[in-house]
Amino acid sequence: MKVLIVGASGTIGTAIAKELEKDHEIIRAGRNGADVQVDLQSTDSIKDMYEKIGKVDAVINASGGASFAPVAELTPELNEVAISSKLKGQVNLVLLGIDYVNDGGSFTLTTGVMMDDPIPKGVSAAMANGGVKAFVKAAAIEMPRGIRINNVSPNVLQESLDKYGDFFPGFEAVPSSRVSLAYKKSVEGKQTGQTYEVY
Amino acid sequence: MKVLIVGASGTIGTAIAKELEKDHEIIRAGRNGADVQVDLQSTDSIKDMYEKIGKVDAVINASGGASFAPVAELTPELNEVAISSKLKGQVNLVLLGIDYVNDGGSFTLTTGVMMDDPIPKGVSAAMANGGVKAFVKAAAIEMPRGIRINNVSPNVLQESLDKYGDFFPGFEAVPSSRVSLAYKKSVEGKQTGQTYEVY
Ligand SMILES: NC(=O)c1ccc[n+]([C@@H]2O[C@H](COP(=O)([O-])OP(=O)(O)OC[C@H]3O[C@@H](n4cnc5c(N)ncnc54)[C@H](OP(=O)(O)O)[C@@H]3O)[C@@H](O)[C@H]2O)c1
Ligand SMILES: NC(=O)c1ccc[n+]([C@@H]2O[C@H](COP(=O)([O-])OP(=O)(O)OC[C@H]3O[C@@H](n4cnc5c(N)ncnc54)[C@H](OP(=O)(O)O)[C@@H]3O)[C@@H](O)[C@H]2O)c1
Repeated sequence: MKVLIVGASGTIGTAIAKELEKDHEIIRAGRNGADVQVDLQSTDSIKDMYEKIGKVDAVINASGGASFAPVAELTPELNEVAISSKLKGQVNLVLLGIDYVNDGGSFTLTTGVMMDDPIPKGVSAAMANGGVKAFVKAAAIEMPRGIRINNVSPNVLQESLDKYGDFFPGFEAVPSSRVSLAYKKSVEGKQTGQTYEVY
Repeated sequence: MKVLIVGASGTIGTAIAKELEKDHEIIRAGRNGADVQVDLQSTDSIKDMYEKIGKVDAVINASGGASFAPVAELTPELNEVAISSKLKGQVNLVLLGIDYVNDGGSFTLTTGVMMDDPIPKGVSAAMANGGVKAFVKAAAIEMPRGIRINNVSPNVLQESLDKYGDFFPGFEAVPSSRVSLAYKKSVEGKQTGQTYEVY
């Protein structure tokens, strides 16, 4: 299969690419993507990317930012980061990509544990994750041509503990190798509308 | 208690006001609100409203729109309606309102059944509802001064079957009187972080 990975150079993206490149042709994307450039915060950029790469069998996203702030300090402006990248970035990657995915192909988006198991300062990311999860569930019932859509919700990664560990006290970090399996299940399996919780 | 209801003139808002006016002072808001005007799609308008009304004990929202379209026809632009009203409108009502809610007071937002039980053409509304539900759950753990936050997720209302019935085949419509009780539970109870499903 031809598999597009947006965010392929990141912690999760690298693990997904490592797992999937054994059996598939990988197209690595990101703002500084190795194969194609895309900024998910721009619909024009998403359209350009799809025009450049043409038809694929699977689209995976492993990118998305959010402001970390307590709810009492979160402003509408700070909240916009999660809305424009994690939420709209991922949703628009789907809306603008349906015509570029082959029959029976798939979209796999990324959410995260804090929508289910909230942490201080995580409200903006949780909001975007919850929106993506509900989008996936609802989109799945009317995707055309057998196209499937799922999302992977990882716990904090062992590989990210240096960066994010302090935000997740008591969370049982998971290795990126375990997380990448959920993307493999989504791409190579037949399920749709699922949230794969890797907790 | 002093209770602000945004969307007080709507189907759900009217039922909430009828239930709560027995015991509380109600401030009715909306773009053409009887007591105060507000457009939740504008942060300036939300700020103006709070400055006008001052401190309250409870803030309820019963407004929010979305484009109804199949996922294959939903554009980023059509999806923006739900993002700016149902999602950002409700979230910003909270973010900009915390300082105006008395200690132990509450916010009660509105989601809806289609995030859990998806319908064709409902993907954009489902996305916004899922975002609000996750926001509520995460915000609840760090609200200051004992302020609580919940959301009510109604099934389609019996009173709305003429308008929306065709979108919800086989759904067991609920009377607005039942829905209004969930808002009463949120305002007068002590729970926080909840999604009250009136299904
Ligand atoms: N790491 C964790 O523990 C963890 C746990 C749960 C969920 N998540 C979520 O999973 C996603 C990926 O996390 P990560 O830790 O792997 O991130 P990361 O290491 O920071 O990598 C981010 C990747 O996304 C790309 N990217 C960033 N902004 C982009 C944009 N606007 N458009 C397109 N590509 C963009 C980056 O490449 P360029 O710089 O070239 O654009 C990079 O390849 C995030 O949404 C994160 O919240 C992470
Ligand atoms: N009815 C149902 O069966 C049902 C079921 C589940 C969920 N819901 C959700 O519940 C919410 C209310 O539904 P409803 O049927 O009661 O709606 P409705 O009858 O159409 O009433 C909407 C109310 O919101 C106000 N409003 C509209 N846009 C606004 C804005 N931008 N800023 C502030 N106020 C605004 C309206 O007053 P003005 O025109 O004066 O602004 C009106 O008072 C919606 O989010 C809907 O999706 C409804």
